Amino acid sequence: MSESSVSTFSCPIPSVRTEEIQIAHGGGGRLTQDLIDRIFATAFSNPALDARHDGAILPVDGSTRLAFTTDSHVVSPLFFQGGDIGWLAVHGTLNDLAMCGARPRWLSAAFILEEGLPMETLERVVASMAAAAREAGVAIVTGDTKVVERGKGDGLYVATSGIGTVEHDLVVAPSSIRPGDVLLLSGDIGRHGMAILAQREGLAFESPIESDSALLWPSVEILLSAGIDVHCLRDLTRGGLATAVIELAESAGLSAWIDEERIPVSESVRGACELLGLDPCYVANEGRFVAVVGASDADRALELLGRCAPGGPPARIGEFRAGLRQATLRSVVGVERILDRLSGEQLPRIC
Amino acid sequence: MSESSVSTFSCPIPSVRTEEIQIAHGGGGRLTQDLIDRIFATAFSNPALDARHDGAILPVDGSTRLAFTTDSHVVSPLFFQGGDIGWLAVHGTLNDLAMCGARPRWLSAAFILEEGLPMETLERVVASMAAAAREAGVAIVTGDTKVVERGKGDGLYVATSGIGTVEHDLVVAPSSIRPGDVLLLSGDIGRHGMAILAQREGLAFESPIESDSALLWPSVEILLSAGIDVHCLRDLTRGGLATAVIELAESAGLSAWIDEERIPVSESVRGACELLGLDPCYVANEGRFVAVVGASDADRALELLGRCAPGGPPARIGEFRAGLRQATLRSVVGVERILDRLSGEQLPRIC
Repeated sequence: MSESSVSTFSCPIPSVRTEEIQIAHGGGGRLTQDLIDRIFATAFSNPALDARHDGAILPVDGSTRLAFTTDSHVVSPLFFQGGDIGWLAVHGTLNDLAMCGARPRWLSAAFILEEGLPMETLERVVASMAAAAREAGVAIVTGDTKVVERGKGDGLYVATSGIGTVEHDLVVAPSSIRPGDVLLLSGDIGRHGMAILAQREGLAFESPIESDSALLWPSVEILLSAGIDVHCLRDLTRGGLATAVIELAESAGLSAWIDEERIPVSESVRGACELLGLDPCYVANEGRFVAVVGASDADRALELLGRCAPGGPPARIGEFRAGLRQATLRSVVGVERILDRLSGEQLPRIC
Repeated sequence: MSESSVSTFSCPIPSVRTEEIQIAHGGGGRLTQDLIDRIFATAFSNPALDARHDGAILPVDGSTRLAFTTDSHVVSPLFFQGGDIGWLAVHGTLNDLAMCGARPRWLSAAFILEEGLPMETLERVVASMAAAAREAGVAIVTGDTKVVERGKGDGLYVATSGIGTVEHDLVVAPSSIRPGDVLLLSGDIGRHGMAILAQREGLAFESPIESDSALLWPSVEILLSAGIDVHCLRDLTRGGLATAVIELAESAGLSAWIDEERIPVSESVRGACELLGLDPCYVANEGRFVAVVGASDADRALELLGRCAPGGPPARIGEFRAGLRQATLRSVVGVERILDRLSGEQLPRIC
């Protein structure tokens, strides 16, 4: 964790020219936030969107609540250690539903294909999506395909949207976070980002790092079924653990405190991050999440997650307190540092 | 309507090399159908998808039925006479819900932005989406943004998904079509495709042709509220009226018969189509639909559509009969011709 953490493989810090879209607008960091605040949130404002969660909670009628979410996927390369764009597209959207406390039920898939894409590539991606959906017990019920000319795409992009059903009375959202709540992390961080980076840069590590792409609903279901007082859930994608915790603190209007030494990082990811000057707390994941639970439920929730969460053992990494809307990290040497969103882009097109 | 109809502005007929994605795979014609049959329908098969409708009908619990649909939008240019990509993205997805007989309720928007896109362009598109959603009484409740490098996109693509609620007991789907059912067309055809074509090719007509992009739910709601026995609805997008009628005949397992002289085409569209050698029956629309109703309801349905459908007056253009799964057009000179899907692409990136 150092100030140099975003140097080696990051894009240049954006210049003062902000009148054009920059790569970092898609990075999940400060410019993404600016775009959301300035353009989308302003134009589209409504209660569901304004909740700033991973998906929208929709009241269908008196008793039924749905979760609804969408993601576009532009990961490069299309195939990587531990997964591919299809695997990621299904997991990413289903995980966003799970983070709303909703059981994933139905998916849509909208493809943008580039002229010249080998049919065999499309077939592999589609087979991957079908397998991931089948594993999750979810049906891909509707879709669309468009084709753009050579040079106007990059092989294949796919946007997936998902619908889930909320089958409990909790409000799993940043607004439910209270001072004293505990932050649990489901498993070790940084695998997805480092797997993509290694693949893209042609780096060979002793043991190849595989993406952590995984379904999170089974872990969430176990917490909910056991009656854990789940206040909020957030999966760690673009921007990694640090950005997720910053977002939760800001949305909840509280301060978050996390301990670096409690954050699980595998030896291979730690080694690769040190080699490349990257901070694992900002590296993307696709199968890890934080759960915010009441303090009295923390031990039991940790024990339940330990039975099922991918990448475990899980860890209790911090808590929320009253105070400024910010996140603070206590480093392994005891120094406290306020976390900030990345202003550049650590690793473009990670998902 | 002639054999030369797809010559002047169409792509070449695809070669025998089918192992790569071709532009025509996105055209809504024969290759799109091949792609759906060979790859998507096989891999993702489930009852909702297999219904081959504009959206999926989902049973949420005992009594509630939802419609769910998705579209990716890659129209070029982004702005055209009578609309823009944002307008189209909202209308297109809401219209697919309406074609399921569902009241549009919620939308998602997933953007893929190209590095270097002027922020002002994004702002205009987003403002357009917000206005279209507001007009429809629909909220854009969740979204996502990704950015791709210069040269890996074409300014802006957006995928919208929508959820609607089915508030009646009808099954509005191809499976409900019966021999003797009547085909009603909501208004004049071909405006959207010709507006895009004129813009793209720099053609100037005496009176500029504007896209017909419009919301179709108000027209559908009037039919449903009046108790019309609506069997099926289909909006006329890529591939135009001809492709929609072919699809309905094939899905319903019936033969469709339509009369060319009853099909409303404006003077300006007819003139432009003649000039360019295009068949208006294959030109894309974004605010027109066909309604299939029981024969005893046809006159009343026509009268109701006449009060509200954009581009009216509507017309009774044909009917379904028992027989081969195909569509036949009786030309203005009385010659009958079996309609076929286009094998090339009349006009790429129309939506």
